[in-house]
Amino acid sequence: MDERMLSEILEGYKDGSLDLGSALARLEDYPEADLGFARLDTQRAFRVGFPEVVYCAGKSDGHLRAILERLLSLGGPLLATRAGREQFESVRDLSPELSYDPGSRTITARRPAPPPAGSPYIAVVAAGTSDYAVAEEAAVTARMFGRAVETVYDVGVAGIHRLFRRLDLIRGASVVVAVAGMEGALPSVLAGLVSVPTIAVPTSVGYGASFGGLAALLAMLNSCASGVSVVNIDNGYGAGYQASLIAGQASRATG
Amino acid sequence: MDERMLSEILEGYKDGSLDLGSALARLEDYPEADLGFARLDTQRAFRVGFPEVVYCAGKSDGHLRAILERLLSLGGPLLATRAGREQFESVRDLSPELSYDPGSRTITARRPAPPPAGSPYIAVVAAGTSDYAVAEEAAVTARMFGRAVETVYDVGVAGIHRLFRRLDLIRGASVVVAVAGMEGALPSVLAGLVSVPTIAVPTSVGYGASFGGLAALLAMLNSCASGVSVVNIDNGYGAGYQASLIAGQASRATG
Amino acid sequence: MDERMLSEILEGYKDGSLDLGSALARLEDYPEADLGFARLDTQRAFRVGFPEVVYCAGKSDGHLRAILERLLSLGGPLLATRAGREQFESVRDLSPELSYDPGSRTITARRPAPPPAGSPYIAVVAAGTSDYAVAEEAAVTARMFGRAVETVYDVGVAGIHRLFRRLDLIRGASVVVAVAGMEGALPSVLAGLVSVPTIAVPTSVGYGASFGGLAALLAMLNSCASGVSVVNIDNGYGAGYQASLIAGQASRATG
Amino acid sequence: MDERMLSEILEGYKDGSLDLGSALARLEDYPEADLGFARLDTQRAFRVGFPEVVYCAGKSDGHLRAILERLLSLGGPLLATRAGREQFESVRDLSPELSYDPGSRTITARRPAPPPAGSPYIAVVAAGTSDYAVAEEAAVTARMFGRAVETVYDVGVAGIHRLFRRLDLIRGASVVVAVAGMEGALPSVLAGLVSVPTIAVPTSVGYGASFGGLAALLAMLNSCASGVSVVNIDNGYGAGYQASLIAGQASRATG
Amino acid sequence: MDERMLSEILEGYKDGSLDLGSALARLEDYPEADLGFARLDTQRAFRVGFPEVVYCAGKSDGHLRAILERLLSLGGPLLATRAGREQFESVRDLSPELSYDPGSRTITARRPAPPPAGSPYIAVVAAGTSDYAVAEEAAVTARMFGRAVETVYDVGVAGIHRLFRRLDLIRGASVVVAVAGMEGALPSVLAGLVSVPTIAVPTSVGYGASFGGLAALLAMLNSCASGVSVVNIDNGYGAGYQASLIAGQASRATG
Amino acid sequence: MDERMLSEILEGYKDGSLDLGSALARLEDYPEADLGFARLDTQRAFRVGFPEVVYCAGKSDGHLRAILERLLSLGGPLLATRAGREQFESVRDLSPELSYDPGSRTITARRPAPPPAGSPYIAVVAAGTSDYAVAEEAAVTARMFGRAVETVYDVGVAGIHRLFRRLDLIRGASVVVAVAGMEGALPSVLAGLVSVPTIAVPTSVGYGASFGGLAALLAMLNSCASGVSVVNIDNGYGAGYQASLIAGQASRATG
Amino acid sequence: MDERMLSEILEGYKDGSLDLGSALARLEDYPEADLGFARLDTQRAFRVGFPEVVYCAGKSDGHLRAILERLLSLGGPLLATRAGREQFESVRDLSPELSYDPGSRTITARRPAPPPAGSPYIAVVAAGTSDYAVAEEAAVTARMFGRAVETVYDVGVAGIHRLFRRLDLIRGASVVVAVAGMEGALPSVLAGLVSVPTIAVPTSVGYGASFGGLAALLAMLNSCASGVSVVNIDNGYGAGYQASLIAGQASRATG
Amino acid sequence: MDERMLSEILEGYKDGSLDLGSALARLEDYPEADLGFARLDTQRAFRVGFPEVVYCAGKSDGHLRAILERLLSLGGPLLATRAGREQFESVRDLSPELSYDPGSRTITARRPAPPPAGSPYIAVVAAGTSDYAVAEEAAVTARMFGRAVETVYDVGVAGIHRLFRRLDLIRGASVVVAVAGMEGALPSVLAGLVSVPTIAVPTSVGYGASFGGLAALLAMLNSCASGVSVVNIDNGYGAGYQASLIAGQASRATG
Repeated sequence: MDERMLSEILEGYKDGSLDLGSALARLEDYPEADLGFARLDTQRAFRVGFPEVVYCAGKSDGHLRAILERLLSLGGPLLATRAGREQFESVRDLSPELSYDPGSRTITARRPAPPPAGSPYIAVVAAGTSDYAVAEEAAVTARMFGRAVETVYDVGVAGIHRLFRRLDLIRGASVVVAVAGMEGALPSVLAGLVSVPTIAVPTSVGYGASFGGLAALLAMLNSCASGVSVVNIDNGYGAGYQASLIAGQASRATG
Repeated sequence: MDERMLSEILEGYKDGSLDLGSALARLEDYPEADLGFARLDTQRAFRVGFPEVVYCAGKSDGHLRAILERLLSLGGPLLATRAGREQFESVRDLSPELSYDPGSRTITARRPAPPPAGSPYIAVVAAGTSDYAVAEEAAVTARMFGRAVETVYDVGVAGIHRLFRRLDLIRGASVVVAVAGMEGALPSVLAGLVSVPTIAVPTSVGYGASFGGLAALLAMLNSCASGVSVVNIDNGYGAGYQASLIAGQASRATG
Repeated sequence: MDERMLSEILEGYKDGSLDLGSALARLEDYPEADLGFARLDTQRAFRVGFPEVVYCAGKSDGHLRAILERLLSLGGPLLATRAGREQFESVRDLSPELSYDPGSRTITARRPAPPPAGSPYIAVVAAGTSDYAVAEEAAVTARMFGRAVETVYDVGVAGIHRLFRRLDLIRGASVVVAVAGMEGALPSVLAGLVSVPTIAVPTSVGYGASFGGLAALLAMLNSCASGVSVVNIDNGYGAGYQASLIAGQASRATG
Repeated sequence: MDERMLSEILEGYKDGSLDLGSALARLEDYPEADLGFARLDTQRAFRVGFPEVVYCAGKSDGHLRAILERLLSLGGPLLATRAGREQFESVRDLSPELSYDPGSRTITARRPAPPPAGSPYIAVVAAGTSDYAVAEEAAVTARMFGRAVETVYDVGVAGIHRLFRRLDLIRGASVVVAVAGMEGALPSVLAGLVSVPTIAVPTSVGYGASFGGLAALLAMLNSCASGVSVVNIDNGYGAGYQASLIAGQASRATG
Repeated sequence: MDERMLSEILEGYKDGSLDLGSALARLEDYPEADLGFARLDTQRAFRVGFPEVVYCAGKSDGHLRAILERLLSLGGPLLATRAGREQFESVRDLSPELSYDPGSRTITARRPAPPPAGSPYIAVVAAGTSDYAVAEEAAVTARMFGRAVETVYDVGVAGIHRLFRRLDLIRGASVVVAVAGMEGALPSVLAGLVSVPTIAVPTSVGYGASFGGLAALLAMLNSCASGVSVVNIDNGYGAGYQASLIAGQASRATG
Repeated sequence: MDERMLSEILEGYKDGSLDLGSALARLEDYPEADLGFARLDTQRAFRVGFPEVVYCAGKSDGHLRAILERLLSLGGPLLATRAGREQFESVRDLSPELSYDPGSRTITARRPAPPPAGSPYIAVVAAGTSDYAVAEEAAVTARMFGRAVETVYDVGVAGIHRLFRRLDLIRGASVVVAVAGMEGALPSVLAGLVSVPTIAVPTSVGYGASFGGLAALLAMLNSCASGVSVVNIDNGYGAGYQASLIAGQASRATG
Repeated sequence: MDERMLSEILEGYKDGSLDLGSALARLEDYPEADLGFARLDTQRAFRVGFPEVVYCAGKSDGHLRAILERLLSLGGPLLATRAGREQFESVRDLSPELSYDPGSRTITARRPAPPPAGSPYIAVVAAGTSDYAVAEEAAVTARMFGRAVETVYDVGVAGIHRLFRRLDLIRGASVVVAVAGMEGALPSVLAGLVSVPTIAVPTSVGYGASFGGLAALLAMLNSCASGVSVVNIDNGYGAGYQASLIAGQASRATG
Repeated sequence: MDERMLSEILEGYKDGSLDLGSALARLEDYPEADLGFARLDTQRAFRVGFPEVVYCAGKSDGHLRAILERLLSLGGPLLATRAGREQFESVRDLSPELSYDPGSRTITARRPAPPPAGSPYIAVVAAGTSDYAVAEEAAVTARMFGRAVETVYDVGVAGIHRLFRRLDLIRGASVVVAVAGMEGALPSVLAGLVSVPTIAVPTSVGYGASFGGLAALLAMLNSCASGVSVVNIDNGYGAGYQASLIAGQASRATG
């Protein structure tokens, strides 16, 4: 529940459109909905601005269904990440609002309207075609949080001319998400070319001495360029979230 | 050189106050000053907004002196990090503007005027007294880039009531820098309590299985809280820089 | 066999209710039952107070069946951990006393009666819903050893208010088991809030740089809070056992 | 400050032996003494039963002196660990109560009276002569917290007959601290022989593939014996603290 | 081919029982049989005393069949390790001499006659029931190389009395193979009790911080007992081979 | 000794200018000079084209002196790497031919004449000023082996325009040595821009999660660009040697 | 597209055999073909001499098909690595030119004619039969780039006489690719025996402490022999590419 | 004390040459001499055949002196390893029998007479000159235990012809100790050439990715040759001890 939803309940009770029982019923799950196996933080939208996001990997169909059902009842946008198609199939009857995006492996509902043209935007830049899923997870996350996003994919440093051809688009962003596996060099190159924060996302793309993304992670942490901070391996969601927080400040600046 | 300095030269030449030889002399080191052993990126202030920062660790006195001398001649604020007192003694005669801060181990000159009261600020929060030097490096960096900074130190999670007593100050910031060694839990707790980006800095404080800060680094990368991104171990400068980029956007918003 | 069982045999022989052959037959497996592929330590209950516990992972159905059969014949409570449902199905005909708990993945028999209300208890606290299985393994283990247990789940540090709402229950315990994956910060926060020992259990919950629970393990070993000791990754059994040993002393104190 | 000290102040004010100004002055540092560079948690004795302990390694003489001075003024036992002799020399003039123990590298003051003969005790057992300093840190810590301690040193598993000669003493303890470097096998052997909790302390004793104590740490975490939990490498203090918490429960039981 | 087989060919040609063509045909694969994808070292029995041993894991059925066929044609004992039952099924028609042992996962043929009673023997000692397969691989290997072997299983250090009950058998051996996973402490304890070489074999038995046997491997390399050397994780074959070389010298001594 | 030197001795003996004793004396150290503590491979120049190179780090003054003395007596160019100035001072009286270069930390004698202008050359490219010593070691090595070398320093990827300004020089080389610490991205960028082999040298420049050059090493091994192979951390000598072997083939091509 | 193909288009338009529309159509994908999910670098053949190579692992059938279709339309040799047979089956209808080699797991088309007899060649040397696939990937890559290749397999250092029997063939090469898993010693031995560059390829062959090829990788990076550089674990393609670049220079030399 | 010494005491008392008091005084330290900080295992010579060996690194002068004094009084050979010259100077007045060997860093007394010519011997083989100290520690250890030793140094695999020139000497040994740093390939090559056990000793010689000997350790554990077992990094003593145990059996064989 966010501020608007809580206000509605209070106003409804004050003006009589909502009787006490109904108001209490709607507040029952606030600030925490106890599902037995989980406690949903329903105060979160009020406290940090975004509702709770569901990480689907490893969740049983039963648990996932119970959580999504409750979140749908609370209103507001819904985002579930690392979702397999089978998981989506097991919950899709909950609401016609639910949709599945195989590229980013996300289940979403009530996607906010995109911001008006000319709004500040986040640039999500990815090094290789194999980084696509992680980059898309970042992009979908940011869009679910109401941000504008531009994507620039397959511009790894081994063919750096490809990056330069799209540099104007990247330089126009208010924050850059740079996604790369293997040697993870893209954020270092990008951060030297832009004057906004770069959020680096190492991916587990690679083999042998990439050690599941460790090589890219270490490279990004040791970037010789200033203005780079790093999230966990394959954590597109975390990068999209952090970029949305940063872009939010830019949005207020231009609003 | 930043935009203002380049404009001055061009205008001076146009209005005759600067003859061609003088104008060229002043542009000689633009966009790159070649010292033989190093190439100073004098276009950087123009390109990314801040001048080049000097990392002193491991530099010989001769190299350090040559670099600082050239940067002083270019004008603008000067920041040198990881500087020992002996290094400062070997260069202090270059200019009376140079000063040394042992707490942050920085050499600075021409520190910008602080922003007006009520400006957006960065909160630099540190877990233990041993994290002081890294936190101060972040704070000094941000102040050199013109940001307002509030510091909250020694509020580690083992005595979490100490953190809560200062929570209002932290919540008022436009970005949080969270510095911690050992188990590195501070950023996770903080990010759950604020609605702005948290830049986490692991420190090498600890012993045994801290493995020089690796434990704190891994903890921060695996934060269960959203809104955390991470810089290298002990990289107070990098966090201060990233926070300054983010706060800059908030500053524009309120300006 | 524990002290009571051995006494019964000796008394039975002394008072004539047991002839020599029967007494020897019952003592045949004492202090060690040799199954060829394994030696059951039947003196263990006598020596350390608890009978041997069976670790099922990797055991063939034949081996598991032979071990459980012998342990059932020895009397006393029976606990088998890391058991898959198929493993249970392959042994369930051995005795109607056997039951399976999918949440903790345990097979048990002859669960001791719970201690009287008001007895000292162990608090098993878990950070996330994904830590459920490990936490339940700890809880079941402690209950099989005759301890009272209270569980508090899904109270990770990213939403620390959830933890505080249940703090009184946790503070009332005589020992705390703190279960967490990802950044593993829960034990540090808890140990600063209670005055009893905290047994920390890292879990393999996480991805990327969690390296299978290594991040949480290192965080717990480096806890800035005093009063934390740590068991192996996912070792709910070990934590439940250690907590039971500690709580046993508290039980004697209040008995 | 502990409960007794706070009561004294309150009673003194109530019965007039302390005027308001004096009472407030004595309460000024409660619950937190702000030294600028550090915040001393003066409520800690009240909250968890022991006053704050000072970790000296890496602290400047000035900081160490300021902290000890304040702690001495607060009353109660004082323990400072990982202290070099030079550090002690720089503070010894603060009070004649301070003394230095080179074996454990501790500075102490106001050591509590030992508990009466026959009290429950902690057994501190060490594998090799090189583990002496860590074991002594555990023993001194426990004694400072009012526990009885028996030490058994140089009983490593390569000459296991030496351990067996002292087994009765170890078995009589209410908790065992087992200290070992190199292969770290002592806790596994001990825990199979006793029926009380074993706190294992890996030490950095060794070379080559001991990797600074990592080998011993991993061995202890993987102990095949139940009833073992582990603290950080060389963390004698942490083991002594945890053992004191556990022994405290046993003390109540026999009190 | 060993010395005896080569002599037979030469003698056969000399005495006319073998014509030149037949002699050459039998020598065709000496000292190397080229199978295209592999070169069999047929001189090995002559050079180091044992024929080449086949490591089956990862080999295709076709390759395995071709290699075993050639080795069978060369005569002498045959040993293939890490063989799945399906691999055995795919080659069993090659010769009625081939047999499969699921415990050690070996395929063998022409097992040498056991040495006479009273011969020096190798003691293969294993800590847990899960170490069975690796220990049996060592035992089968040694028997294939003509050594006598005694096995003592499930005598881990957590119940050290079990080990002591079998100590006389172990002490009578001319070399000890000590197999253990988890904390890998068995070789340290054993080597302190015997006066012959101990070959330590870490196994991948364990979970969490055992890191696939790394914990046991490090423990064994750091053994505080003298007289221990170590082979790769799960390398029962290597230990059996090394023990056979050592025992061979003892055999000559008593022969 | 190389082919020319051996021929001289043989011819001298044949034409009588050298008597048998003198010829044998000169051949005494061929193909191996036994210094007791070391065996110099005097056949090496004949076998692989370059004489033996001395690695000074960790060598006592006595050993170093003995080795250099013998190598000087054998004739041909002399290269000693990782030499401290004190080591040079302890041997400089051996010959006026010896000289010391502090930048590359090398001792050399009889440096070959540089190849004629227009010869194929090796480009040694370094990312930062701190990589200077390693890059110079590569350059000196190559020059000692008779190659032409061009150096391009301080062109790291965070300011990629600096690299592009010198790209023509780099593209003209017949092999590129790319030296970088921190995130180690330079070789990936370079290899995408040139059509000759790139030899990548990670350096230990960095701190925290650079882990002594491990981050750069992993990045280079995982390069997304083709045409990169890697040598050990800080191994400027190895890169210079490998580049010399490669450039030698190009030299023959254009000769 | 390479120089020849671009020239054909330009000439065709100049001489009228190609009208403007057709010329533009053929140039449409130059210098980059945008497939949406990927950008093919069609200028690459012109820039570095070889067309882009496709890494099949992890690619969906749809993506792989689209990429191969476009590359086939561009002309020139085609190489796709790490391809499963199923992947080949899903694209084989694209062109009768496509063929699949299960040994090297490559899909190829338009393999260049082999160079004339007596041309310089690359020696691909492998230690064990299990290294076959990686070695063949290197060999196929080099042949696709027009190089002559000789292979020498199963010559690991444990039977070093097998290597010496083929030494003349290896010494005749202009560059050596040395492939080995387990202890990775082959490149060190080889590089001491030849006077040309050795490209070392560690493989993931092994178990236990080979850690997926890490042991071999470290061994190769630490080679005591000069003239060794290393590629990623199992990166046969990378070694074949690097060797082709080097051999290309030798080819020019002899051409 | 060994069997002979104990027998002397008993016989002396029996035949009256020793009175009861003297006999008891001489037995006072048997089977354990308690020095307070250490317990000397005086039964060890009786139990395993060799007296206790002293590891000097990290021992204070006082402790070392006390231990050596007691061991000298017990009679029999004395060996102290990892001893600095200063340590020797601090104890040399204890007995004129003590001598110091800087090459192996050992203090010894009462070195046993060498075995008669033609006795079985141990071959200690080292790869590089930097491995000298570790190899000598192995050789001195074996000689102190009464074994004959032949040393072959500086025969690393990069110049494998040097090894072959001394192969007959190595092949004649009854056990081989193979010492190597860097890539650690020597044991693999050796074990393929001999038919006796090879004890491999990795050394910390190297830099960069040798990680303090880890590279050599892993290589040796992964040896593709059979008959190799491994001791800790730099553990020359351990290898010498293990080799002495093995050679002892060979000695009995030929005795």
